[in-house]
Amino acid sequence: MIEPSIALYGDAFDKVESLLEELLKNTQSRYALLVDRKGFVLVHKEALWAPRPPSLDSIATLIAGSSSATNALAKILGESQFDALVQEGKEISLYVESASDLALLVILFDKKAPLGKVKLFAKKTAAEISDTLEREKHLPRPELKLDQNFSSGATALLDDLFG
Amino acid sequence: MIEPSIALYGDAFDKVESLLEELLKNTQSRYALLVDRKGFVLVHKEALWAPRPPSLDSIATLIAGSSSATNALAKILGESQFDALVQEGKEISLYVESASDLALLVILFDKKAPLGKVKLFAKKTAAEISDTLEREKHLPRPELKLDQNFSSGATALLDDLFG
Repeated sequence: MIEPSIALYGDAFDKVESLLEELLKNTQSRYALLVDRKGFVLVHKEALWAPRPPSLDSIATLIAGSSSATNALAKILGESQFDALVQEGKEISLYVESASDLALLVILFDKKAPLGKVKLFAKKTAAEISDTLEREKHLPRPELKLDQNFSSGATALLDDLFG
Repeated sequence: MIEPSIALYGDAFDKVESLLEELLKNTQSRYALLVDRKGFVLVHKEALWAPRPPSLDSIATLIAGSSSATNALAKILGESQFDALVQEGKEISLYVESASDLALLVILFDKKAPLGKVKLFAKKTAAEISDTLEREKHLPRPELKLDQNFSSGATALLDDLFG
């Protein structure tokens, strides 16, 4: 089964969540997501006034897919990857900024949010998120303690249950 | 075999070519292409000073593919399609604007061309190209005259050749 390339919990999760919240406030955007490059939503935030969001999981999957497709395009043009992507619709626009080599920062906004402002704050937020993810990568993961004690305890329990 | 959804020749081709040329001059971009949504290059122009372009056919194919992939994304967001797409790399950036329901206007530019200027002129050029394509759609296609005369002439020739 495909698994997220990074998992965020504890302080790192809270930090990214507050960065996204700040970003929404500063830009008046509707939704902000951090998705990993495989298409998993890592953290998401929506503005209080925003209408019910569309399926964020589907959006994350489609964005991760289209982002890896356009990497082929970037390579033809001699770029390692595109750093930023803007897609403008009549009502809703989408801004995607690379946040480290693991994740993408996705912002959905309407006409209320000027693109220039979204870009400016997105770049700042993406850099901060990237730092947070980098630090997170080097922390030891909290481990489940499945040691000798657990193993013999579990065996005894199973023996009890099934005779 | 897959065929372009529109073919440009004569006046329409010249008109689009001169529009692309003007666009390059106005924005100081490197390359401008009109590609149909199936991925064929219909018309292309490059700036005199621009370095040797990458394979424009590959670019057209990748852009048409990624554009139809992102249409799924647009639909989730309640848009019929995205009108404009910007992808920013470190050196080269890419701007794609919808020019009618048949074709996409693609512009490749470097840091010399400000994005705002590219967007402004691209929208104007896309509208003019869209008009040209619309007029073209309603014109009768020039037909090859493969009538009775041609048919008997060809048969006689083949008889001569193969006895």
